[in-house]
Amino acid sequence: MPVNEYYTPEVQGPYELISIGDLELEEGGVLKNVQLAVATQGTLSPERDNAILVTTWYSGTHAIWRDVYIGEDHALDPSKYFIVTVNQIGNGLSTSPHQASSPDEAAAFPHIRIGDDVVAQERLLREHFGITTLALVTGGSMGAQQAYEWAVRFPDKVLRAAAIAGTAQNTPHDFLYTRTLMDEIRSDPRFADGRYASHTEVEQGLRRHARNWGVTGFSTEFWKTQHHRGLGFETMDEFLDGFLEPYFTAMDPNDLLTMAWKWQRGDVARHTNGDLATALGRITARMFVMPISEDMFFPVRDCAAEQRMIADSELRVIDSVSGHLGLFGLEPSYIEQVDRNLRELLAIPVSADARRWTDTTDGYLG
Amino acid sequence: MPVNEYYTPEVQGPYELISIGDLELEEGGVLKNVQLAVATQGTLSPERDNAILVTTWYSGTHAIWRDVYIGEDHALDPSKYFIVTVNQIGNGLSTSPHQASSPDEAAAFPHIRIGDDVVAQERLLREHFGITTLALVTGGSMGAQQAYEWAVRFPDKVLRAAAIAGTAQNTPHDFLYTRTLMDEIRSDPRFADGRYASHTEVEQGLRRHARNWGVTGFSTEFWKTQHHRGLGFETMDEFLDGFLEPYFTAMDPNDLLTMAWKWQRGDVARHTNGDLATALGRITARMFVMPISEDMFFPVRDCAAEQRMIADSELRVIDSVSGHLGLFGLEPSYIEQVDRNLRELLAIPVSADARRWTDTTDGYLG
Repeated sequence: MPVNEYYTPEVQGPYELISIGDLELEEGGVLKNVQLAVATQGTLSPERDNAILVTTWYSGTHAIWRDVYIGEDHALDPSKYFIVTVNQIGNGLSTSPHQASSPDEAAAFPHIRIGDDVVAQERLLREHFGITTLALVTGGSMGAQQAYEWAVRFPDKVLRAAAIAGTAQNTPHDFLYTRTLMDEIRSDPRFADGRYASHTEVEQGLRRHARNWGVTGFSTEFWKTQHHRGLGFETMDEFLDGFLEPYFTAMDPNDLLTMAWKWQRGDVARHTNGDLATALGRITARMFVMPISEDMFFPVRDCAAEQRMIADSELRVIDSVSGHLGLFGLEPSYIEQVDRNLRELLAIPVSADARRWTDTTDGYLG
Repeated sequence: MPVNEYYTPEVQGPYELISIGDLELEEGGVLKNVQLAVATQGTLSPERDNAILVTTWYSGTHAIWRDVYIGEDHALDPSKYFIVTVNQIGNGLSTSPHQASSPDEAAAFPHIRIGDDVVAQERLLREHFGITTLALVTGGSMGAQQAYEWAVRFPDKVLRAAAIAGTAQNTPHDFLYTRTLMDEIRSDPRFADGRYASHTEVEQGLRRHARNWGVTGFSTEFWKTQHHRGLGFETMDEFLDGFLEPYFTAMDPNDLLTMAWKWQRGDVARHTNGDLATALGRITARMFVMPISEDMFFPVRDCAAEQRMIADSELRVIDSVSGHLGLFGLEPSYIEQVDRNLRELLAIPVSADARRWTDTTDGYLG
């Protein structure tokens, strides 16, 4: 397959490719020689107690976290913490369909689950960095799905968790929404069931996929108040054509579909025979649930319902007219709120010895 | 063009095709020999003061109003009122693209505006029925757009207006949403720029269009509470495959696109150089603004903002988990609320002589 420039260090900035070996997949089969693309900032303390894991969202990479969320002026401060951002499998940097040697092989990339990512990340942290306890795991959207999976699956390893704009159990509406995103790509005749030679052939499908994000990714109020003008775009179409469309049309269709399929099925209740309350009851981490006020597909209501099932948790709504894609940090007030909450969460003393359930097994799928 | 059975009286029930002659279009050009498909119930009083105009929404016809909203057990009671339901231009029953004699002609159907419908309806009522004053004009969604257009354009003819789940000025978000609906159809290669021989050729595009409605037409809570099960469908897909997909795949793509283009541009501020407050300030009707609580694209917030600009108006939110497509009357509580509000509105004494502005000109576009 031709190189897709978008996924190179020239575009994404530096990251390290770390092999974690073969990964048995939740859906069956084995993903051979999995490589995780990892960016680290800061220094691991001798006690190995200052590690923060950052997970990535649909289409996202470590770069947006580096640029918007991480820095000495942020809660995720590399002068205090060792911050490990792990690109999710299928995002183009970690092992992904588009890296295959042929279109047929790319189209045959297996289904990946949120649980696969988290198992891979746990192995990476333990074997490569010697980290067995996380001061914090945080992520947005699909990154929140991974944070929840961590807190439920490895409760004795997670001291604190912050789930931004995402849920522990994907909602039916979200499943349908994601399906339309996938349909936009798959319905492009040049997608050819995933056997295209270059992502540029699927430009029309990727463009419609971007437009669909334009409807639901922001909020009704974002458009009504012409918020895009404050971002330097005179018209809606200039904003969509100048921001969202180039963003998504640079990406690989099979990579996006791998993530979308995974997103649709994020669900910690897999560990407890479908019982969400029992799954969330396993969480011992001090947890902040941080929905975005105007999010149209991870609405506050859905996030709040989950938060109420988590013992040591608080609901911290982030006000943002940008809706879900407020995650991009389009407003200064957004990152200020995120920082304020994460600082507060990180300042709460939580000891690895003080966990309520220290006997939790890490049993795979319950 | 082959007959599309969906638009026949066998499917839609009886209606009358009434010629209103040629119609000068707002966008320029003339639509020749316009025929409006009209269903009436009840009897016009000798004083001609009991007429109610019902307008239709995107994809809708008079049939849903007949089946759900009109009857002696409803506020729209044919034993009291003469109820005229006028199918909008382009909906397949009134003059519409698919009635053209060739695919080329169908594809060349001109752009229609909400204002064109309202001008046509006014002419119909005046010339054919001798009606110059409406006891009520009401409609949902695009029907609400028409109700607003009536109240702003012909204030001295409208005593009462009820806008259900729609706005006077289409929002930017709505414009984008509608564009994705249009894209679903237009991106089907067999749509062939509108020059398909039969709507069945565009089934894939129509199916994606239906799926897109499935995401935004209802509400996150509709799906989360599995509301479809109460409607007799076990799974989401059974509901979508058994209800929304057959509903939309029966329709004509060019007809849908004609309505969608019109919907995108509904805006009473055309009459006042873009000044919405001035336009809504023209309304003398007693008006109820009736958004649906869970509507994702005509949210209560947007409807309430317009209501505050209308002098003699009230906001009456209809609670429905079904969201926008609550319009279909999926819940008994929905139609009960609509009836209660419309009964109250109809019971308010409003005299044609007591209007604040009797000097309003009907000047075309202000």
